[in-house]
Amino acid sequence: MTRTVDLNSDSGEAFGSWSMGDDAAMMKIVSSANIACGFHAGDPLTMRSTVEAAAKNDVSIGAHVSYPDLVGFGRRFMDMTPAELSAAVLYQMGALEAICRASKTRISYVKPHGGLYNAIVHHEKQAEAVAHAVKEFGSDLPILCLPNSEIERKALTLNVPVVHEVFADRGYTPEGTLVPRTQPGAVIHDVDKVAQRVLQMATEGTVVANDGSTVTLDAQSICVHGDTPGAVAIAQKVRETLTAHDVEIRSFCA
Amino acid sequence: MTRTVDLNSDSGEAFGSWSMGDDAAMMKIVSSANIACGFHAGDPLTMRSTVEAAAKNDVSIGAHVSYPDLVGFGRRFMDMTPAELSAAVLYQMGALEAICRASKTRISYVKPHGGLYNAIVHHEKQAEAVAHAVKEFGSDLPILCLPNSEIERKALTLNVPVVHEVFADRGYTPEGTLVPRTQPGAVIHDVDKVAQRVLQMATEGTVVANDGSTVTLDAQSICVHGDTPGAVAIAQKVRETLTAHDVEIRSFCA
Amino acid sequence: MTRTVDLNSDSGEAFGSWSMGDDAAMMKIVSSANIACGFHAGDPLTMRSTVEAAAKNDVSIGAHVSYPDLVGFGRRFMDMTPAELSAAVLYQMGALEAICRASKTRISYVKPHGGLYNAIVHHEKQAEAVAHAVKEFGSDLPILCLPNSEIERKALTLNVPVVHEVFADRGYTPEGTLVPRTQPGAVIHDVDKVAQRVLQMATEGTVVANDGSTVTLDAQSICVHGDTPGAVAIAQKVRETLTAHDVEIRSFCA
Amino acid sequence: MTRTVDLNSDSGEAFGSWSMGDDAAMMKIVSSANIACGFHAGDPLTMRSTVEAAAKNDVSIGAHVSYPDLVGFGRRFMDMTPAELSAAVLYQMGALEAICRASKTRISYVKPHGGLYNAIVHHEKQAEAVAHAVKEFGSDLPILCLPNSEIERKALTLNVPVVHEVFADRGYTPEGTLVPRTQPGAVIHDVDKVAQRVLQMATEGTVVANDGSTVTLDAQSICVHGDTPGAVAIAQKVRETLTAHDVEIRSFCA
Repeated sequence: MTRTVDLNSDSGEAFGSWSMGDDAAMMKIVSSANIACGFHAGDPLTMRSTVEAAAKNDVSIGAHVSYPDLVGFGRRFMDMTPAELSAAVLYQMGALEAICRASKTRISYVKPHGGLYNAIVHHEKQAEAVAHAVKEFGSDLPILCLPNSEIERKALTLNVPVVHEVFADRGYTPEGTLVPRTQPGAVIHDVDKVAQRVLQMATEGTVVANDGSTVTLDAQSICVHGDTPGAVAIAQKVRETLTAHDVEIRSFCA
Repeated sequence: MTRTVDLNSDSGEAFGSWSMGDDAAMMKIVSSANIACGFHAGDPLTMRSTVEAAAKNDVSIGAHVSYPDLVGFGRRFMDMTPAELSAAVLYQMGALEAICRASKTRISYVKPHGGLYNAIVHHEKQAEAVAHAVKEFGSDLPILCLPNSEIERKALTLNVPVVHEVFADRGYTPEGTLVPRTQPGAVIHDVDKVAQRVLQMATEGTVVANDGSTVTLDAQSICVHGDTPGAVAIAQKVRETLTAHDVEIRSFCA
Repeated sequence: MTRTVDLNSDSGEAFGSWSMGDDAAMMKIVSSANIACGFHAGDPLTMRSTVEAAAKNDVSIGAHVSYPDLVGFGRRFMDMTPAELSAAVLYQMGALEAICRASKTRISYVKPHGGLYNAIVHHEKQAEAVAHAVKEFGSDLPILCLPNSEIERKALTLNVPVVHEVFADRGYTPEGTLVPRTQPGAVIHDVDKVAQRVLQMATEGTVVANDGSTVTLDAQSICVHGDTPGAVAIAQKVRETLTAHDVEIRSFCA
Repeated sequence: MTRTVDLNSDSGEAFGSWSMGDDAAMMKIVSSANIACGFHAGDPLTMRSTVEAAAKNDVSIGAHVSYPDLVGFGRRFMDMTPAELSAAVLYQMGALEAICRASKTRISYVKPHGGLYNAIVHHEKQAEAVAHAVKEFGSDLPILCLPNSEIERKALTLNVPVVHEVFADRGYTPEGTLVPRTQPGAVIHDVDKVAQRVLQMATEGTVVANDGSTVTLDAQSICVHGDTPGAVAIAQKVRETLTAHDVEIRSFCA
């Protein structure tokens, strides 16, 4: 039996005349594309071309929902009320879904972006608002999230499915959490090391933590970056390494 | 057999802390609500509460799609390319549809707003872009539009249904077109006169033009305004007059 | 010798087609207008007409600078970096100053708005960023702020002048801080009571706290609201009461 | 006596996390930087760093004012009223001026951007609105514009100075107007040819038109592009060629 793992990457983060990342390259590497929905990036026309590229490459489409903050690229915490946030998530999901319909495809999952992603690891009310919106959207879509996070707990309470995500190029603590970006070892830049770690995650379900110990990780989906040329090369190496070891790269929705 | 006519009105044109019109009153008067989708008005939370009010009052929901121009309230022509406009229309329709889904309802039609509404009376490429987007959305939704307009022609070419709209408080020329706002008689302010004209439109399919002649109008839906206290009173009088003459106010989608 | 006190009020909080408050009435009551600069409200044309109304009524003009958050009306905390915030404050001050120049007037002070106002009571980095921007603007403009706040400390460190503000309709604790809005007595709605409290603030520099004790307040400027009809009536009563007791209402900049 | 000519280029067209062009390279080539003011590009922090780079390189700063259209990069005509446009221009000029003040420099001229630049070649009301705003700003700043344009006429009527601009890489008709982009010869891509044309413009005040005739051009400022790597190379070659022929590159404001 072949092992499978999902590779996801942020996509469609252009805006109007501004470009970001190399979506064309990444669409040939990943199995899931987190597509920006207009609130941190992704004007409607960019969404349209990104959806078409994903559909053409048989890449699953996720709604990459965000705080409304173009200038901050959705990276800054915003103190939205649950009602505001829930409506904003529905709005973005629907906008992307309509653009998918025009390309005869559909949204398969939801991944919160940036500041919102970070906030709902612990922010109970915002986590619940996001989970509630996904529930109300009504297609049993899963939320791609960190294990042991508030968003996971709120989703499960509402019978919203979750998919656990790990990061290809991030360091892990012995507790299985991410090494904070302010600490050494937060990000791993060596291409081969990243590829070997991903292989271990995908085949053994473990990673070597920053103290040398081995910790268990539930790698249902592995996030790779594509917003710099170097990042594309890393993602490509990850793909090659997995494929060379008989790990099939396949969307968790497929 | 009872005659029926649809009354439509713009709704949900608040934005954040700013309010506009008296949606609560209008939802008890009209049969169709053109709900702003965030591009000229209508933040996600406003959309949510407007959709809920429409659903509660059995009012049909139309996507009131616009150019992206909050500060101009969507009233200014924007020279968008067909691809930009088509994606923008899909985006707004989807955003509203998702919010409808959360309230167990759905969009029933599309009405372009303001500057876009005016442009696609004659602008062939933008008209086609709008019709194409509604087609691609894929639910056979009709477009509420002026008869003999470019948008009507493009819609019919694409097999997108249209519903003809007339205006309760606007003067008409002998050719059946609106008296331009720069000319006398463009807007009729007298409550009783407006109500009588609407009654004639609904029951006889005619209106007295600004030269005194009687012209034929296809009054499938009658637009009434609700954005001022006086406008609500006019709409209320229109409703009462129609009802008193056994004209049932009913959505063209019902 | 006549006592004087400044009355300030938020102004120019319309946006495009949306209105807010009754600026025309308030310009005849207050001595200082905090004019929105486009980030929470106040498009350029609204700024222009508000500046002209202030100039015509000899009302001092303050730059009411905000987080960039139209849909949230600037009320939500945003985790901006100091560099982002400082540039945003300069941007808004300059925008308003240019519009003032066109009306042959100028900005006389700065008052942070909403979520930013609340944040810089305690948020050291954002407080310093705001104070630094006002310093860099280079006209020795004072910042209107709460006494004993972080923004006051940062301003004074940078030799930026401050003006202490009290609130006409808010309850005070025995420590001289505002009663939180979640507690009883946070807002005083009785017109006569508000007017009497303001009179005491202006003439005796004290207020009766929520435990009945009398506390000292440095009422260099008194904030009155104008965003509801009731608020205008309160502001008018405050003005009449002060004037009847020989307290002259005069800008702290005059 | 040394001949001098001004080279201008669009700058600061990043927005938040999105970059555009190579400002660092261009600041070493040109004598005038048209800096985006937030309406088509250029968030406050980008404006700040662009102004600082210009000041450090002794490059004159122009306010690159635009329609409010981030997603369209200011390239689309917008049917703004004169009052809206005039206030929008003032707003942007002031915003940039304040950021200049923080870097101990100032705006030296105004150049309308994109769709607005094109519109005011012929649109009388918008041209007058722009000229009026520059007049009201009150620093006798010149407007960089096409000769024989409506904006030039309106500016001169209001005693607003103008500086004539030519384009390094555009073809010209025998009448001295630009070859429309829809026609062959609209844009010249050959580096050496562009450099030679600019040299002729700067030293002889003429250019070879698309019919082979020689036409007179008033090349007070020559616009070079910097938004692609190839464009930077062209601009660099233009600079080298001019310098090699004893033409000094100097701001028309210096």
